[in-house]
Formats: sequence, structure tokens, C-alpha cells
Amino acid sequence: MLIVQKFGGTSVGDLERIESVAKRISKTVAKGHKVIAVVSAMSGETNKLVGYAEHFSDNPVREEMDMLLSSGERVSASLLSIALNEMGLKATSMTGRRAGIVTDSFHTKARIENIDPTSMQNAIDSGNIVVVAGFQGVSEDGLVTTLGRGGSDLSAVAIAGALKADLCEIYTDVDGIYTTDPRIEPDAKKIDKISYDEMLELASLGAKVLQTRSVEMAKKLNVNLVTRSSFSDAEGTLITKEEDIMEQALVSGIALDKNQARVSMRGVKDRPGIASDIFNALAKSNINVDMIIQTVGHDGETNLGFTVPKTEMSDAQAIVQTFIDNNEVQEAEYDSDICKVSVVGVGMKSHTGVAAKAFSTMADENINIMMISTSEIKVSMIIQEKYAELAVRSLHGVYELDK
Amino acid sequence: MLIVQKFGGTSVGDLERIESVAKRISKTVAKGHKVIAVVSAMSGETNKLVGYAEHFSDNPVREEMDMLLSSGERVSASLLSIALNEMGLKATSMTGRRAGIVTDSFHTKARIENIDPTSMQNAIDSGNIVVVAGFQGVSEDGLVTTLGRGGSDLSAVAIAGALKADLCEIYTDVDGIYTTDPRIEPDAKKIDKISYDEMLELASLGAKVLQTRSVEMAKKLNVNLVTRSSFSDAEGTLITKEEDIMEQALVSGIALDKNQARVSMRGVKDRPGIASDIFNALAKSNINVDMIIQTVGHDGETNLGFTVPKTEMSDAQAIVQTFIDNNEVQEAEYDSDICKVSVVGVGMKSHTGVAAKAFSTMADENINIMMISTSEIKVSMIIQEKYAELAVRSLHGVYELDK
Repeated sequence: MLIVQKFGGTSVGDLERIESVAKRISKTVAKGHKVIAVVSAMSGETNKLVGYAEHFSDNPVREEMDMLLSSGERVSASLLSIALNEMGLKATSMTGRRAGIVTDSFHTKARIENIDPTSMQNAIDSGNIVVVAGFQGVSEDGLVTTLGRGGSDLSAVAIAGALKADLCEIYTDVDGIYTTDPRIEPDAKKIDKISYDEMLELASLGAKVLQTRSVEMAKKLNVNLVTRSSFSDAEGTLITKEEDIMEQALVSGIALDKNQARVSMRGVKDRPGIASDIFNALAKSNINVDMIIQTVGHDGETNLGFTVPKTEMSDAQAIVQTFIDNNEVQEAEYDSDICKVSVVGVGMKSHTGVAAKAFSTMADENINIMMISTSEIKVSMIIQEKYAELAVRSLHGVYELDK
Repeated sequence: MLIVQKFGGTSVGDLERIESVAKRISKTVAKGHKVIAVVSAMSGETNKLVGYAEHFSDNPVREEMDMLLSSGERVSASLLSIALNEMGLKATSMTGRRAGIVTDSFHTKARIENIDPTSMQNAIDSGNIVVVAGFQGVSEDGLVTTLGRGGSDLSAVAIAGALKADLCEIYTDVDGIYTTDPRIEPDAKKIDKISYDEMLELASLGAKVLQTRSVEMAKKLNVNLVTRSSFSDAEGTLITKEEDIMEQALVSGIALDKNQARVSMRGVKDRPGIASDIFNALAKSNINVDMIIQTVGHDGETNLGFTVPKTEMSDAQAIVQTFIDNNEVQEAEYDSDICKVSVVGVGMKSHTGVAAKAFSTMADENINIMMISTSEIKVSMIIQEKYAELAVRSLHGVYELDK
């Protein structure tokens, strides 16, 4: 098999850990696999360099930031290659440029446009382990670029896609994706396999492990993604196509998002386009609206509610106030003490009653549901924040995720 | 004028010093000059990276060392460019690759083969200060290379040559070349102008400031080289063509080389090719033979003496022993307590008596001269090491270098 193995900053955090990474790669090679390793900078290095730049400027030239920051991955990539060669393995390191990773020109947050895998393929074909400096590429005009937060994961997934690798393993300090946050529910179980779409809905459960961008790219490129720990040999979680998961669980996991706040507008003026005006105004201010609910009361009064991240609440409040000042909204209530609990599972597509069971579980626990939003594979509920853990634990038990 | 300014590791040793370098460049620009800055890695960085590599291997893969080490200059170059931009100046940093510096493939000690100055010229033409990462280039097959010790000086001189710059300033922590080592002769004076050839003969005086390779390249490319201090505004020493120096000093300086040892062979067999055999054997072992003297005694016995660096003495001894074992040399003496004192000056070409004055000065001080070697612009004498400082001071006075 051709396996892409990505090691984050913690996994290559010091020389001993780089040594461990080299040993892990050598084990994979010993099993007969071909390996492309993608590495981040040693942990702390990128922050150190950012600090240097900020000494000179609050807003350093982005092209220069990329020149600066891309040096961190050169160091970890070359050191890992040196360690592998010292073990008697054939290894060669490559910058993003040499690996053929072409991006757009949005320096410090570039997007990968395409990958020319020729150099990597040639190196692999001549028996090399290829060590690629993650997080970086090169723009059409030949300047080095970086991919922003989580960039090394994107490098790994894109490389796996370009080379049609059998597997893309993302090594972190967590051993996989769990049915829910184990700090809330100690009986949470590690998930063996999960579909891309479920993973995207469970983003909050994998937030520390995988960025949404990486999962989306893996889905698009059909890359089998595994997240696992670089500190143990435990199998991780495979994120793959829905069709490739034989036994679909009814529910895969329970996600909790505490970073939610709710705006409830009462007496919204009954004119065409009023909702569009409100949400366009919010979008223009870069406010991320999540759930939206509109109700019409028996007196003909229209109510409109929506949720935003807690940090964007005051911005949203200012915009809603302009509609109140214009007499287009009668009044509004703001509530930050809420959270979103989501039940996620592709099994819902073919089984009825999953949502009903969620609602009755809330009723049994005397938890009031303020808003509901559903998709084919998800039921999300807004409830009071103080019930967050209770709701998660109850749902986790009801769907037998601890079994 | 177009000026190349090279700043070594000490000059960009920390963020405050990088700030000072930016200010110095801005002053040069304010005078109406165009500037290409060439920078080394922040002092200590290269050693740190070498230490990392040595953790893994006593003999790390050279290609990977270049990938590793070239990161240091990326950091200092981008930081300097950020600092310049923050001052409102237009600056752009370039790697060796982008600067068009093409080298051979001898990784970790590559030689510059040619420079394509297009990118630098375009950037200069559009009003940029160009900041080039020194010490590095790119091989024909696209891999990053480094130039070995003193490599950033070579980058600067080669760039100055390729762009036909008016001046190449090498900034260090010393303010120029002195008539002799000021620690030996406190009355030593800073030299204002000196020819390439004199500088090459005075290598030991400039050893901490300029490498021989850089002076040779400056001579070849006709680059006006200035060494000066990055910590003061004092004018430095200009190293240039002999024809461009109006008032030629009879003697420019007195150099001292304590790293010398002497081998004296007695009774060398009288057969054709014996000397060639001995010196070929030494050359094959990479022993740098400096002075050679052959004498034939009145009894027809041939004596052969030569000097080598002290550190190569024991290797030389082993080789000479093989000739003794073969009965081709009768016996040999080895002497490490010697030194070489040289009087250097282009004025010697047109004035007689310079050498004679050196010999009589030694005689006046009762210093025995063991070996003599002369060139058009130099008289070197091997004397006992204990007389080193006395000889230097006496010669410095006799040629009135303190005036």
C-alpha cells in the first residue's frame, strides 16, 4: 500500500519525538508499504517566528510571513529524513515547491490549486520514503505560500489524493474520534469507522484532531482518512465513504457545541424580503448564523429566531437594533446561556423515530427544547446551557453508544 | 550607486540588531543609492541546526543538511524585509534560488557557477530593496545547496559582480583591515585602501573579516570590496584593483602566521623525481605544504625543508617516515615552535631594498631566519615562535606603518 502519514507539531515536538516518528515509519516500511510522511514544524517554532515578525510590525507583509514561516517545516522535514537515513532507510525531504504543491496567491492562507506529483512519484518509484514539508506550497509566480491553520493536514490529504494513496493517516496526540466528549461521558467509545458527512456534522468532536477543511477535501478526493495517536499503537478512526462502511450505526455520536447564542425577534414586520434584509445585513458583517426558525403566531405576528457564535452576539445585537429602530422589528431577546446538542448518524436516513427518541429523551429529563434543526443525518436541538452535560449523557445512553 | 551590503550573523544576531541593520540600509537609500542586502543566519542558529542534525547522525546526508541549514537565512532575510517595509520602504526578500544563484552539486560546500540576475534586477528596477538569503543557491537539478564557511560573503561578492554593483560592503564586528594585528602592535593603523593581491597575502590579518575565497572572487569579478563595522559609522577598508589606488604604500602590512610547523629532511637520496614523490604523497593526504626550500651541501648531500599547518604535522611526519624506511631520506627533524612573519606591499615591485631591510631588522634583533620565501609583493620569513611579537613590532616600526 501507499500510505501518507502526517505528523503534527507535537509529534515532532523535539528530537526524541522525531526519532519515534522515524521508528514508526520504519515499521510501516517493514510491513512492505510505501510511505510519504508530511510534517509540521516542531511545536512552538511557528509561534516563535510569528513573535519575531510581530516585534517589527503589527501587520507584517504576508509574502514575507510565508518566507519566514515556511522555514519551520524545512527543519523538521530534513531532520526526519536525516534520522531515517541513519536507520539505513532511503529517504528524501521535499519542500512544498518540490513536492509540486501549487496554490493560489493568498499568502498566509493560500488554497491548494493542484499538485504535480511527478517528483514525489519518481522518488517513491526509486525506493525512497518521501518526507514533505507540510503547510506550504508555491504560487503560480514562484513565491512560497502557506496554507493557514491546519495546513499540514490539507497538504497530507491533497498529496494522498494526487498520488491515489490507499490511506492518509493523521497522527496527533488523540487516538481517534469518540462517540461523544469523554470528559462529559466517561463511557464514550472510540469510533472505528465513520462517513465523511457524519464527521463533518460531528466537527466539534474532532475539533482538536481534524479541521473541517481537511475532511471536506478528503471527501472530495475520496481519500481514506485515519486519525490516530503518535504516542500509541492503538488503531484510530477511519473516515471514509458511506458505502464503504458495512455496518452502519443508527447513531454515530453526540456532539455538543457550547459556543452558541440565540437571538429571538418578536413582531417582525410583514413585508416581502424582510428576512432576507436581516440575514444579508448579518452576512455582510461576517456573522455566522447557524440555525434559523420562523414562526407565525395565531395573532398573525411573525417571530424570527436564529443562533450565532457567542463571540458574535454583540455584533448581531447591533444589527438587529437597527431594524428595531426602523420599526421593522418590535423587540428582540438575546440569550447566551444556551448550547446545541446534536445526534448524528447516517442510519437516520433509513430508520424513522431517531428524532422522536431524541425529543422524548429531553422530555423525560424535563429539558425544554428551544429550537430544532434537522438534516438527513442529524438532529440538532438548542437547550439551556446548564442542561448540556445531562442531555449529552442521556442521549449517549438512549442510543446505546456505550455498548 | 548600486550597493551590495552584506550583514553577517553577529550583525543580525537578535531582533534589535536586525532593526539597526534596517536603519543603516534606510540611510543608504536616503542618500539615493539602490541596495541589495545579503544576510547570514542569526548568530547561533546555524550551530543549533547542526547540533540537531548531529543528534541523529555523525555524518548526516549532505542534501538534507542543505535543506536544514538554508532555513536560517530565510528567517533573517524575511525578518529584515518585514522591518524595512514597516519603515515605509519597499523591500522584498529572496532565497538563493529566487536570486538566481546556481551552484554545482557539492552539497554543504557548493561553488557558485553562475547567477541569473533577472529577478533581482527587476525588483531593483521597480524600486525595491532586495534582501537575499546568503550562503545558499540551487543546483542544476533544483535542490537547495549551501556554500560552506564564509558562504554569505561569496553570495554578496558574486551578486555584486553579476549586477555590476558599484560597491560590495561586508559588515562585521571589526572596522577594517589593519597594518598588523593591533593586539600585538597597539600602534597598528587601519588601512584605507589595499589591492586584492596584497589582501590575499595579508590573509591572516583579515582572517576574522574576509575569507580568501571572497577576495579571490572579488578580484576575478572586479568587485570593489569594503569591510567595515556594523556597529559604527567609521569608514572601513576598500579592497580594489592595484591601478585604482593612487598612492601606493611601499609596505601595506605585516602578517603573522603562528599555525606553522617545519619539517627538515637531511640526506635526501639523489635520484630524479624524489622531491616530486615526496610532495605528491603529501598532496594525496591533503596536507597543505606552504614554503619549500632545497639546499645542496658542499659534501653533495641534499637537504629538503618545508612547512605545513601545525595540525597537519603528525600526518606529514608519517609520510616522511615511509621515505626514511625506504632509505630514501636519511633523517628528519620536526619543529612546531616556529612562525611565519610576512612583509606585504605592492610598492616592492618598483622599490629595491625592502627585503634587505627586513633581513637586517631581524639581524638587529638577533632573530635567526630559518627559511625565506619571496614573491613580487611579499617577503616571508620563518623564525622561532618566541620571537613572533618582537619581529612583528620591529618590522612595523621599520617600515613606518604607525605613521
